[in-house]
Amino acid sequence: MYSFNNDYSEGAHPRILDALVQSNMEQTVGYGEDSYTKKAAEVLKQRIEKEDIDVHLLVGGTQTNLTVISAFLKPYEAAIAANTGHILVHETGAIEATGHKVISIEVEDGKLRPEDIKPVLELHSDEHMVKPKLVYISNSTEIGTIYTKSELEQLSKFCMENKLILFMDGARLGSALCAKENDIELSDLGRLMDAFYIGGTKNGALFGEALVICKDSLKEDFRFHIKQKGALLAKGRLLGIQFLELFKDDLYFDLAKQANKTADLLKDGISGAGYKFLTYSPSNQVFPIFPNEIIEKLKEKYLFSIWEKVDENNSAIRLVTSWATKEENALEFVENLKKLGIY
Amino acid sequence: MYSFNNDYSEGAHPRILDALVQSNMEQTVGYGEDSYTKKAAEVLKQRIEKEDIDVHLLVGGTQTNLTVISAFLKPYEAAIAANTGHILVHETGAIEATGHKVISIEVEDGKLRPEDIKPVLELHSDEHMVKPKLVYISNSTEIGTIYTKSELEQLSKFCMENKLILFMDGARLGSALCAKENDIELSDLGRLMDAFYIGGTKNGALFGEALVICKDSLKEDFRFHIKQKGALLAKGRLLGIQFLELFKDDLYFDLAKQANKTADLLKDGISGAGYKFLTYSPSNQVFPIFPNEIIEKLKEKYLFSIWEKVDENNSAIRLVTSWATKEENALEFVENLKKLGIY
Amino acid sequence: MYSFNNDYSEGAHPRILDALVQSNMEQTVGYGEDSYTKKAAEVLKQRIEKEDIDVHLLVGGTQTNLTVISAFLKPYEAAIAANTGHILVHETGAIEATGHKVISIEVEDGKLRPEDIKPVLELHSDEHMVKPKLVYISNSTEIGTIYTKSELEQLSKFCMENKLILFMDGARLGSALCAKENDIELSDLGRLMDAFYIGGTKNGALFGEALVICKDSLKEDFRFHIKQKGALLAKGRLLGIQFLELFKDDLYFDLAKQANKTADLLKDGISGAGYKFLTYSPSNQVFPIFPNEIIEKLKEKYLFSIWEKVDENNSAIRLVTSWATKEENALEFVENLKKLGIY
Amino acid sequence: MYSFNNDYSEGAHPRILDALVQSNMEQTVGYGEDSYTKKAAEVLKQRIEKEDIDVHLLVGGTQTNLTVISAFLKPYEAAIAANTGHILVHETGAIEATGHKVISIEVEDGKLRPEDIKPVLELHSDEHMVKPKLVYISNSTEIGTIYTKSELEQLSKFCMENKLILFMDGARLGSALCAKENDIELSDLGRLMDAFYIGGTKNGALFGEALVICKDSLKEDFRFHIKQKGALLAKGRLLGIQFLELFKDDLYFDLAKQANKTADLLKDGISGAGYKFLTYSPSNQVFPIFPNEIIEKLKEKYLFSIWEKVDENNSAIRLVTSWATKEENALEFVENLKKLGIY
Repeated sequence: MYSFNNDYSEGAHPRILDALVQSNMEQTVGYGEDSYTKKAAEVLKQRIEKEDIDVHLLVGGTQTNLTVISAFLKPYEAAIAANTGHILVHETGAIEATGHKVISIEVEDGKLRPEDIKPVLELHSDEHMVKPKLVYISNSTEIGTIYTKSELEQLSKFCMENKLILFMDGARLGSALCAKENDIELSDLGRLMDAFYIGGTKNGALFGEALVICKDSLKEDFRFHIKQKGALLAKGRLLGIQFLELFKDDLYFDLAKQANKTADLLKDGISGAGYKFLTYSPSNQVFPIFPNEIIEKLKEKYLFSIWEKVDENNSAIRLVTSWATKEENALEFVENLKKLGIY
Repeated sequence: MYSFNNDYSEGAHPRILDALVQSNMEQTVGYGEDSYTKKAAEVLKQRIEKEDIDVHLLVGGTQTNLTVISAFLKPYEAAIAANTGHILVHETGAIEATGHKVISIEVEDGKLRPEDIKPVLELHSDEHMVKPKLVYISNSTEIGTIYTKSELEQLSKFCMENKLILFMDGARLGSALCAKENDIELSDLGRLMDAFYIGGTKNGALFGEALVICKDSLKEDFRFHIKQKGALLAKGRLLGIQFLELFKDDLYFDLAKQANKTADLLKDGISGAGYKFLTYSPSNQVFPIFPNEIIEKLKEKYLFSIWEKVDENNSAIRLVTSWATKEENALEFVENLKKLGIY
Repeated sequence: MYSFNNDYSEGAHPRILDALVQSNMEQTVGYGEDSYTKKAAEVLKQRIEKEDIDVHLLVGGTQTNLTVISAFLKPYEAAIAANTGHILVHETGAIEATGHKVISIEVEDGKLRPEDIKPVLELHSDEHMVKPKLVYISNSTEIGTIYTKSELEQLSKFCMENKLILFMDGARLGSALCAKENDIELSDLGRLMDAFYIGGTKNGALFGEALVICKDSLKEDFRFHIKQKGALLAKGRLLGIQFLELFKDDLYFDLAKQANKTADLLKDGISGAGYKFLTYSPSNQVFPIFPNEIIEKLKEKYLFSIWEKVDENNSAIRLVTSWATKEENALEFVENLKKLGIY
Repeated sequence: MYSFNNDYSEGAHPRILDALVQSNMEQTVGYGEDSYTKKAAEVLKQRIEKEDIDVHLLVGGTQTNLTVISAFLKPYEAAIAANTGHILVHETGAIEATGHKVISIEVEDGKLRPEDIKPVLELHSDEHMVKPKLVYISNSTEIGTIYTKSELEQLSKFCMENKLILFMDGARLGSALCAKENDIELSDLGRLMDAFYIGGTKNGALFGEALVICKDSLKEDFRFHIKQKGALLAKGRLLGIQFLELFKDDLYFDLAKQANKTADLLKDGISGAGYKFLTYSPSNQVFPIFPNEIIEKLKEKYLFSIWEKVDENNSAIRLVTSWATKEENALEFVENLKKLGIY
């Protein structure tokens, strides 16, 4: 039974584990004030080509989202997210639990553009309503799409003009930045985002998200927020060691490319077998539409999630590849699919 | 420079790392629903000798405390803690951030007894005040003391009579249970506590706290709380694998014993050198009182924290040993101390 | 300049003020434990024909909504509201500020029915999402519609079957219950709702909402919640005196009837002048659609709010009548409208 | 049965009611944007002799405290209060419910001085602890004492030097400012406080506290905070009208003087009868110590609260006078006391 269920089904890339084993018996100070964490921050600053950023390493995505958003907003301010946004749907109200509304914007492709946000700003006009203040975007998005540099530039300009904070959830940033059509580099994010994070959990680390705060006014006392939310790891070096290793010799990008490559194999094969997709995805998530009978058969050999009903007889499923997915895993899936015939 | 700064200066016990390496490429489902986590829960149930408990594995202590306390209390209910309680002082208001007051009780030895709590209950008499509802205790306490079985039994009886929830922070439970004078077993905790946790971070794991919920009415929907607080680890198996290993062949207890043994060596040696202690501690934290000049000299060779001023010329320091502290580390410290002479 | 802006433009009905003046120098205990408040609760129990309810008198609507919802829900539970729901849009995130998500359901007429709620329950299937738990409805709704007894019975049945709490915001309950088409009585609400409130602010009181909690499990310690939210009025008797007066000789219903009658005059007149309405409203809010030029002219003589653009040239406005609106105010408006001709 | 239980046992001073009656049928806009509220703000600015302040009128004290403190603090920042502070003990954790810790400082007389606060700042040194940020003081205090101008000046200087926000709870400010020994004027508060409020509820209004924000950086978007906390009164004019009347012809101060005068009569009489007091109080709260048998006898004729046990046989009670207390009420109490003899 092979799992395409998500990109965190395995442990970590062996180099990550090696690095942990190598450093294991060394004594360091706790809570992310060790030299590994500091070095990791330095390396990320070089990669992002920006010195005046703050880097904080946290364990998980929901934890990072709730720490960031509650830190950046005043009590009456709200976040804005696409209707597919992770914080809106799949974090058990974690943002609301910190006191903030998340305003949903209905979009087709998981991406927010200035014209989507403008009506929200117009609607929220006085103190009887929350004040929309932070724009939450994901790259890649929860449905596999990615932003272009031009889109981010327009969004950044719009946010600046409207005094909005622009924050990118980069849980799957590796896959986004390594997509064939991508034209964004880490240095663009340092320039265009107020804050963003570089996801490790879904790209080869045991766990870990590297939060980058670019805007000066958002940096103050951030470690207080981390500690208060229970997000300050005692053995903080575990995060530093992993990100150091991930950004040595481009391992981070190599892993993402492997995930994308096997996703492309799936897409090509599924398409070749005559099936369509729910959404166009250039990253490591694939959303093919299959007849329900085919899905039942596939379930005998594969783990994956059913994304949504398309009509009475067909549903979209989600297939996720990772750094650990081998080309043969993808090809074998396509083989098996083809054997099932077309219904 | 050797560090007695805390019990999380190193990585993990090598067997823990081995277990992670061995299982690394296996695919499992996420979020703690994997077989390792389930097995770990089974093993803990056997150790605690109680089947009808819920076990949840979380990453860190503050995270566990805030998730548990906010889950167990209604908005107007408060926690009670000794003035040394970790939640009261060293968690950046994490409990208050979830909306709950922590009521401080001044005690000498870090431990709460019924007679300490009674006046708090009497004082809080109507709806103009919070309702004290959860008694938070630590074992070992933040100043190294441990509870006796009789003390826990009295506390449990008192809490039951007064409809209070009894919750034990076991970040250093290993050291407490392995102290020479200890008469408590895990099965006693299952019988006497409403909830408690077994600390891994400070006893040989990379990270991890095993929360045990004993009282039925506190179990419902607990995973919702974990997820909402950002505390549901994507690769939850990492916690399961570690706790499975810790409770194979008594590794957990062997590690705690090693920490206690080296702490005892420190205590005996320091005492033999003519110094006194701030508090009597049978566990892995030692609080000797030294002249400030001695402390300055010790700082040249050791990392440790200064706990508090005792008088103009003397201060108490905190020395913490761990599973990784070797006997020679302790003996060498004593040697060095003796060389410094008595001021 | 006459104001149809809202139903709280004036002070209180003179009988309310008289009652306050009469009782003014009497000494009573504070915080709603006085005899007036107790009598008011008794009178409401008689009206609702139910003895085992708890009545609490609060100052305002947002205050009541946030106190109730945060009291009734566990941290991970959410409220459900129609897209027009006051808590969703016009309370500055007051519910989210207490930690709870409000799930929006798109409906046409401001009312929720079982078939609207069912998909929300189906969607929220596990601990990665909030748990929908409380159904918030308004009667009359924010766009003037009212529930029928049959609709409430179906909703109540559905909520009971799905373990949902059914809560009615009755800020404009008077107008709803006195609408010509209404077939609901206070006793039906006591039977069908888990909690609801009877609005005083918008129906003749200086301020005040009478919260009725019908479901036993929701009653416990409710005064703690009120106090914690800053909603326990020191001179609580002011609320008791007002509700006592409102429910003496049916004053409450007489005032609502007057509001409805003048709203009907507006509706008939506007309709007679050839205009349509945004929504069919049998209560004291009227939403006529006028050409923008007409609206500009009306603004010279009247205060009202513009509800929404209908098309390039036409908008819907909101006219609200109250117990203090006289028939001549309504008739004069229609006169003025007719003089402006049809564009 | 006469009540010395508190200073909100009666309704309002008749002039307040008259003003409400006079303005009753006038139509105004809601939510405190009416002309009465604006005029009241103007009058207060003149009294405070400061133009660049923001005035907001709220209904009650707990409501004001929680709105202010949650608005002024970042999530990890804490308030500091004397151990007698209202927010610490008697508001059901209202401040903690907004996410903030209240740090208690043990003092004798209910007042905070720089030397009391300094150790708290020294203790809270890093991100593992909350950051003390707002100093909450009450004038008069909860035990009847008042601040001198020199004390406030030192406190203000200290707060400025340490970047602390200085906030005064003025629920009983009238009595404080009218105490014989008082040397503070409203204009001093405008100069020395970052924010404070002028209590109406306990000095002749039906309800109402006039919040004054002096520091520019604390003013922004404050109405959003008020609305979110359910503290924006629909018929906001009710507050404006009351404060306008209170500050016409010094009514506010006349009422406070009457309360103080009758309190002085009590103090002189009780002292003359040979009794001592728990605390020296120059304001409208008196804390005499009586033998328990005397207290039992007094209870037959008077309502008052028992403040605390002094020893086995004696307790301190609290007697509160108000604008409505007549001299004969005080004298009669003394008479009755004398008749009871000395035990």
